[in-house]
Amino acid sequence: MRAWETVAIVGVGLIGASIGLALRRRGLAGRIVGIGRNASRLETARAMGAVTTVTTDLDAGVAEADLIVVCTPVAMITSHVRAVAAACPDHALITDAGSTKGFICRQLAAHADTASRFVGSHPMAGSEKSGARFAQEDLFEQRVTIVTPVGGGSDAVPQIEAFWDSLGSRVVRMSPDAHDAAVAAISHMPHLIASALAAATATEDLRLAAGGWSDTTRVASGDAELWRQILIQNQGHVLQSVDKFAKVLADFREALATEDAARLEQLLDAGKQKRDALGS
Amino acid sequence: MRAWETVAIVGVGLIGASIGLALRRRGLAGRIVGIGRNASRLETARAMGAVTTVTTDLDAGVAEADLIVVCTPVAMITSHVRAVAAACPDHALITDAGSTKGFICRQLAAHADTASRFVGSHPMAGSEKSGARFAQEDLFEQRVTIVTPVGGGSDAVPQIEAFWDSLGSRVVRMSPDAHDAAVAAISHMPHLIASALAAATATEDLRLAAGGWSDTTRVASGDAELWRQILIQNQGHVLQSVDKFAKVLADFREALATEDAARLEQLLDAGKQKRDALGS
Repeated sequence: MRAWETVAIVGVGLIGASIGLALRRRGLAGRIVGIGRNASRLETARAMGAVTTVTTDLDAGVAEADLIVVCTPVAMITSHVRAVAAACPDHALITDAGSTKGFICRQLAAHADTASRFVGSHPMAGSEKSGARFAQEDLFEQRVTIVTPVGGGSDAVPQIEAFWDSLGSRVVRMSPDAHDAAVAAISHMPHLIASALAAATATEDLRLAAGGWSDTTRVASGDAELWRQILIQNQGHVLQSVDKFAKVLADFREALATEDAARLEQLLDAGKQKRDALGS
Repeated sequence: MRAWETVAIVGVGLIGASIGLALRRRGLAGRIVGIGRNASRLETARAMGAVTTVTTDLDAGVAEADLIVVCTPVAMITSHVRAVAAACPDHALITDAGSTKGFICRQLAAHADTASRFVGSHPMAGSEKSGARFAQEDLFEQRVTIVTPVGGGSDAVPQIEAFWDSLGSRVVRMSPDAHDAAVAAISHMPHLIASALAAATATEDLRLAAGGWSDTTRVASGDAELWRQILIQNQGHVLQSVDKFAKVLADFREALATEDAARLEQLLDAGKQKRDALGS
């Protein structure tokens, strides 16, 4: 049974196109409208079956939508959601897929036209790759999507949770601020650390890089502009995570500098315990 | 054509057993003697075809060997190589597979019985996993093995290089000290960073861990005791790498704290350029 007559997706990159593919594969939507600024990118998404129709006109694209998912870079989400809210039907619900939530959700809760119909979301299923061509219909399966109502939330919350659940996600509900603190530690810090490690590596040593360097720096391939936006929007929590990490790093340095073998092994073992708890 | 009549492998973990499998698969050795302290581990290696015969008696195990590869933890390599040298035939060559080279090669170059017949090696093909059961016959294919002669090197050097080449490795020759500086940056630092990142993560955030955290911390699963030995043996170079990294991390922190978007994106882009240069 169709859950939605018309779903509009604003921004058909990796996440947006994967949502479209998942909706179609599962028969959850009658029409899927892809909305973006770049006609050839939209055509790529249409050709691969991620959307059924495309337009560069946001107002026209959302005019008949029952659900709109805004999948644009985090710095654009607030203005895109407001533009969507001004043009979509009264009954329509709006969510997003941004990696930060505090700034976005606070802004949108402050406006009457978005307070009741927008619910923030963050599917934890990104990749260092970007673009519709890397989209996967099973991208959200078994992955966590965090849904972040403001205050008590609205009637829209369970519907947005049901949406991500219908794509195979494990839905976790958190406040926008709790979300930002958690993803600073679990996602934004790994990116910053991977990037710093890659940047600190001398070019002439790269020919010796094996699996360790390669795994540890993989996410540093992510789009620099998108990540700059994410880090700045989540500035406070990321700075806290950086400082917490720097303290642990200083402990490692001290143990190594003083050849405190027992302490060094204890620190290495603490890292191993956390990593092993996750599995491969 | 057989390259070696008898090869002895001291320590049949992931690396030692993979050497055995590669030698057998390529028909490069008549006999492969697995030497270790733990009889049941040796039996595992024999049962999987990594060695043709096993013994817990090092002297007996190397008595007829033409080549001995010491694959024990780095803190043990020097004493194991000296014990091997005292018991093997005069014509036999000895190498190792340790992740540090300066300390080991300096020690062994200072003794007449090992100076001419030992050549240090480091196959850059480890894994966060350990144990013979994770051995692979193609572990060294397309991977770099660094061979580290001391001074001018001996006649043994080209033979040891030919050995790793025959297993499919790309051989790179470096001095022990240049090796240690390079691997501090490309291998030991990623481990230390991954471990510090994992250790700094709160347990309650782990349920949200996605691909980014998982990739960035993967190597932290490595054996804590082995890595403690490696970091301490390569103390000087690792501390230099830690300080270089900490400086780049401080640059990131400063750019983020001051909301210097241009600088932050420049740093992220520098990391991306280095990572993209490697490929996936």
